[in-house]
Amino acid sequence: MSIRIGIFGYGNLGRGVEAAIRQNRDMELCAVFTRRDPSSLKLKTAGVPVVSAKEVSAWADRLDVMILCGGSATDLPEQTPALAKYFNVIDSFDTHAKIPEHFENVDRAAVDAGKVAIISVGWDPGMFSLNRLYASALLPDGKDYTFWGKGVSQGHSDAIRRVEGVLDARQYTIPVESALQAVRSGENPELTTRDKHLRECFVVAEEGADKARIEKEIKEMPNYFADYDTTVHFISAEELQRDHSGIPHGGFVIRSGCTGFEGEHKHIIEYSLKLDSNPEFTSSVLVAYARAAFRMAKEGQRGCKTVFDVPPALLSANDPAALRKQML
Amino acid sequence: MSIRIGIFGYGNLGRGVEAAIRQNRDMELCAVFTRRDPSSLKLKTAGVPVVSAKEVSAWADRLDVMILCGGSATDLPEQTPALAKYFNVIDSFDTHAKIPEHFENVDRAAVDAGKVAIISVGWDPGMFSLNRLYASALLPDGKDYTFWGKGVSQGHSDAIRRVEGVLDARQYTIPVESALQAVRSGENPELTTRDKHLRECFVVAEEGADKARIEKEIKEMPNYFADYDTTVHFISAEELQRDHSGIPHGGFVIRSGCTGFEGEHKHIIEYSLKLDSNPEFTSSVLVAYARAAFRMAKEGQRGCKTVFDVPPALLSANDPAALRKQML
Repeated sequence: MSIRIGIFGYGNLGRGVEAAIRQNRDMELCAVFTRRDPSSLKLKTAGVPVVSAKEVSAWADRLDVMILCGGSATDLPEQTPALAKYFNVIDSFDTHAKIPEHFENVDRAAVDAGKVAIISVGWDPGMFSLNRLYASALLPDGKDYTFWGKGVSQGHSDAIRRVEGVLDARQYTIPVESALQAVRSGENPELTTRDKHLRECFVVAEEGADKARIEKEIKEMPNYFADYDTTVHFISAEELQRDHSGIPHGGFVIRSGCTGFEGEHKHIIEYSLKLDSNPEFTSSVLVAYARAAFRMAKEGQRGCKTVFDVPPALLSANDPAALRKQML
Repeated sequence: MSIRIGIFGYGNLGRGVEAAIRQNRDMELCAVFTRRDPSSLKLKTAGVPVVSAKEVSAWADRLDVMILCGGSATDLPEQTPALAKYFNVIDSFDTHAKIPEHFENVDRAAVDAGKVAIISVGWDPGMFSLNRLYASALLPDGKDYTFWGKGVSQGHSDAIRRVEGVLDARQYTIPVESALQAVRSGENPELTTRDKHLRECFVVAEEGADKARIEKEIKEMPNYFADYDTTVHFISAEELQRDHSGIPHGGFVIRSGCTGFEGEHKHIIEYSLKLDSNPEFTSSVLVAYARAAFRMAKEGQRGCKTVFDVPPALLSANDPAALRKQML
């Protein structure tokens, strides 16, 4: 019996989940739900129905887990609690500051309905959070550092596109190599925002636009760029398409701590990701946690969980004895 | 109420646990058990009794978790099942091939006694195993690599000491940098034993010993050295003491995998440790899992567990809501 999966929302993330399900033989994609006209969607998987979001409740008994692939700004705060009434659900809610509120809302709905919900699944929040937790539990006397990149920040790219005279843009977040090295050396440096990351922008300007003004506006933009060393390159639309159409990302979680009666021994724990496709990797994490949600629901658990609550063995398609024999 | 911890065995690991408990305010060291004459042991922590191993059962109700600090060859296979009759127990059993058998023996004892036992806790097995599991669950189409070092291998150092004419020795296991780079690049190379690690030996020879013969015997030693590129340096006892008395270790777990409908996107997940003190870091992991064992026992769980079965949140002294707010 395969685990029956539904996808709610069919953008980059939804397509990534569709691809990831094919890599997991114990899972089956049963339906994709959309708020658009279902006939406008063309899936890559033959024989899977595209269903209007309005009809989702009719599928309550036909799916084991629904994977939500909407955005954190407006979609998930509404959709995750609403869908937890009918399904075990997984989302990738990534507005860090609002996680406690989202957790409460989803927990209420999932407990009432007797479902399992796992929120904020992905790599940050997600695998990076897990590594912060493990490392801080192992080395209580220590300091955590998270670096992001090199990778595309969608939010920063969008911010540049809102500047007058900009046709298109792509922004890369880049960790500062010397800061990384200082952290790895165990120096426990105090790092400002500017010390940790660079921002590199590739901008397609309108013909005749004032590039100096655009560059200045970008570099002085509060929150997004003002606190960083920012580089702006003007390129053609063709160059943007040719050289910058991927969505790579990644980063580093490093904890530097000490042990011993006098704190005399230093230790560095480092976790890093280098991802060709940010949405596809996030999708792969969602799918592994869908397996865990299915198993936790079967065990009779209910309510909202995060990656912190999930025993690692539940993520694997292999059984516990095989895991102990092969991976421990 | 502190978590009441006992230490069984007071070598490098036991002393490391004693030091680690001081870094965890929710824990208290209540007793150290030894097979030696208790009066021969001098603890670093004032007021903690040293108790003969023969009297351990009298402590059944006075400890929440017993941390076993014996060796995997002969101590733990006997001690862990025996002590699981009286205590929740944690060990660092690290003979990979015998883990399934050890698990069964400990599970039987712990289930019968209604106790929780967590075995094979440390960094390999332990944190490295966890990272192999997480990474393979996230990237099912991929390949795992584990590199060890740079660090001291006690087993290999001991093997050198058994060579005629050797007074003392220290052996470092060193990952081959070019192999690491090939793995990180996503090439998924096939690597032989020789491709992955170098072995560097520092040897103190008896006066007048035949160094050429010693070097040859080391380099040709089956299992330990014959399959590796091995370097032998002869040094004085003073130099060994001065430059090689530490017990550093570490290593890398890397998974390289792909996603997408055509496997067109590559991803690299890397976890690494750089440890000044191998036993003290292992001790720190043991202590964090002691907290988890205490909590799992309180929840009414019983039987043998491994790091694969422990929800990460149980390792942290912080409560779940704080973890979600600060670390997720």
